[in-house]
Amino acid sequence: MHISKKNLLDTHQRIKPYIHNTPVLSSGLIDQIAGAQLYFKCENFQKMGAFKMRGAINAILQLSDEQKKRGVATHSSGNFAQALALSAKLQAIQAYIVMPENAPEVKKKAVKGYGGQVIECEANLEARETTLNKVVAETGATFLHPYNDYQVIQGQGTAAMELIEEHDDLDYIIAPVGGGGLLSGTALAACHFSPKTKVIAGEPLGADDAWQSLEKGELIPQANPQTIADGLLTSLGDKTFSIIRDYVEKIIRVEEDEIVSAMRLIWERMKIIVEPSSAVALAALLKEKDKFKGKKIGIILSGGNVDLGNLPF
Amino acid sequence: MHISKKNLLDTHQRIKPYIHNTPVLSSGLIDQIAGAQLYFKCENFQKMGAFKMRGAINAILQLSDEQKKRGVATHSSGNFAQALALSAKLQAIQAYIVMPENAPEVKKKAVKGYGGQVIECEANLEARETTLNKVVAETGATFLHPYNDYQVIQGQGTAAMELIEEHDDLDYIIAPVGGGGLLSGTALAACHFSPKTKVIAGEPLGADDAWQSLEKGELIPQANPQTIADGLLTSLGDKTFSIIRDYVEKIIRVEEDEIVSAMRLIWERMKIIVEPSSAVALAALLKEKDKFKGKKIGIILSGGNVDLGNLPF
Repeated sequence: MHISKKNLLDTHQRIKPYIHNTPVLSSGLIDQIAGAQLYFKCENFQKMGAFKMRGAINAILQLSDEQKKRGVATHSSGNFAQALALSAKLQAIQAYIVMPENAPEVKKKAVKGYGGQVIECEANLEARETTLNKVVAETGATFLHPYNDYQVIQGQGTAAMELIEEHDDLDYIIAPVGGGGLLSGTALAACHFSPKTKVIAGEPLGADDAWQSLEKGELIPQANPQTIADGLLTSLGDKTFSIIRDYVEKIIRVEEDEIVSAMRLIWERMKIIVEPSSAVALAALLKEKDKFKGKKIGIILSGGNVDLGNLPF
Repeated sequence: MHISKKNLLDTHQRIKPYIHNTPVLSSGLIDQIAGAQLYFKCENFQKMGAFKMRGAINAILQLSDEQKKRGVATHSSGNFAQALALSAKLQAIQAYIVMPENAPEVKKKAVKGYGGQVIECEANLEARETTLNKVVAETGATFLHPYNDYQVIQGQGTAAMELIEEHDDLDYIIAPVGGGGLLSGTALAACHFSPKTKVIAGEPLGADDAWQSLEKGELIPQANPQTIADGLLTSLGDKTFSIIRDYVEKIIRVEEDEIVSAMRLIWERMKIIVEPSSAVALAALLKEKDKFKGKKIGIILSGGNVDLGNLPF
């Protein structure tokens, strides 16, 4: 195993001063609809509005002083960008964020608000990587990958650690999967701290590279992902893939309308704001209700950064 | 004084099994904007989504068995309707709810969902009262007023009691004012449990009968209220007026755009869903920022029942 129990415990201690131990909420009505007991880990209430804060601050705290001086750089369509900008600000270092030009305006603004420098590029993986390489060459900044990085994965795993601390008898934990940082961290946390808890992922059908990769047994990158869950457009990396392959029971794919109605259910019944990517986990559960009947299930609500001017309702 | 400390303590004990002790949340960013420390009492997380549950269940629990048999009736444009329907359901009695035909569809549906019988009428006070009298005459149900009733006022006061239990050093508590049930209950709770805490109200300029009434020193009903804060369209009653006159320091009036931007601030920064009426309290604080600079302030977020298909963003 790549990440030990001690790695995770050390990570949690290291990042605790910089993150919120977010609340775990329940909803009687959603339990009734699901026929199960659900415990929602509310990372939408995390600093900057998403779990990504955990991995970003952990990676930055591991840098040498020399590296910190030259700053950090990444490419991200959204939440990791904000997370890295805020984490860098907390450590008084510079963050360079390469963002696709079509990223939500609210997310670009937030990065700048945290003092990050936004470098726009075309909306494809090649342009992202070229631009990022240029930034790194010019500034000497350390590139931090949004998810395919063990420090980032460990950080993301602390959300499930906290959930398991509060509820040590979960039958399942369901998380959304995009690049796989949250899912692989969650799977390792469950494996180390609650081995009887199975980990399952929800994934949009229009961006189902993780499902495809597990089916084929090899990494299948997504060519042209299409989903409202804009946090899940990325493809697995080699590190996240190998953890997910070994420790995740199953990936459940959901349709766009299932994502929107799960999101609406959370908004209307729990009175909390979650982004579409967050709703994918609940949508997955509702899609295969029979499997989860009568079980205790942790759901990781990954974030709450939505553009209120552009809602799907 | 109409309502004693013991009344409030007894009320809280009586209703505790039926309500949530809702969380008190803070936001570093909103504190920064306000230049003060704000503690938001989240009644949007209350059962059925608003503080009205407190007063409704308290009033129902005080009925005789004979009265319970014949049910309860009220007229309400929204949250009290749902609160009474749900409270009645919990006591296995019938609720008859007279609602204006232009009330939000989502609220009518919710009343029916709780087993309440909806009787529609024209959207004016006269039609409401005529229809209600007819229902009461036909069914023998007990009329419960949405706010001008001491049992209801006491129930609503328990939200501030819980807030004061958690934060006993507040300089101010700000609540929105419509009919005045929440505001008068809040003022009495502060007076009994934290006498140094001043109570202030926020009120929409387009429905400012409470402000007018305090100015003139007599009850001035609102003729044609116009505001997005649909929970605040009602006018004070004689009971709520006399408490507010004696125990509320000030009413701050806010414009419609101030309500919407306070609402947006809460949604975006706190990731919670509040209805426009709830945002009026924060809007009032932001309008007179200088008064509140450096103070500790409780804000009562009154409810979270919005029609997601009809948002002001």
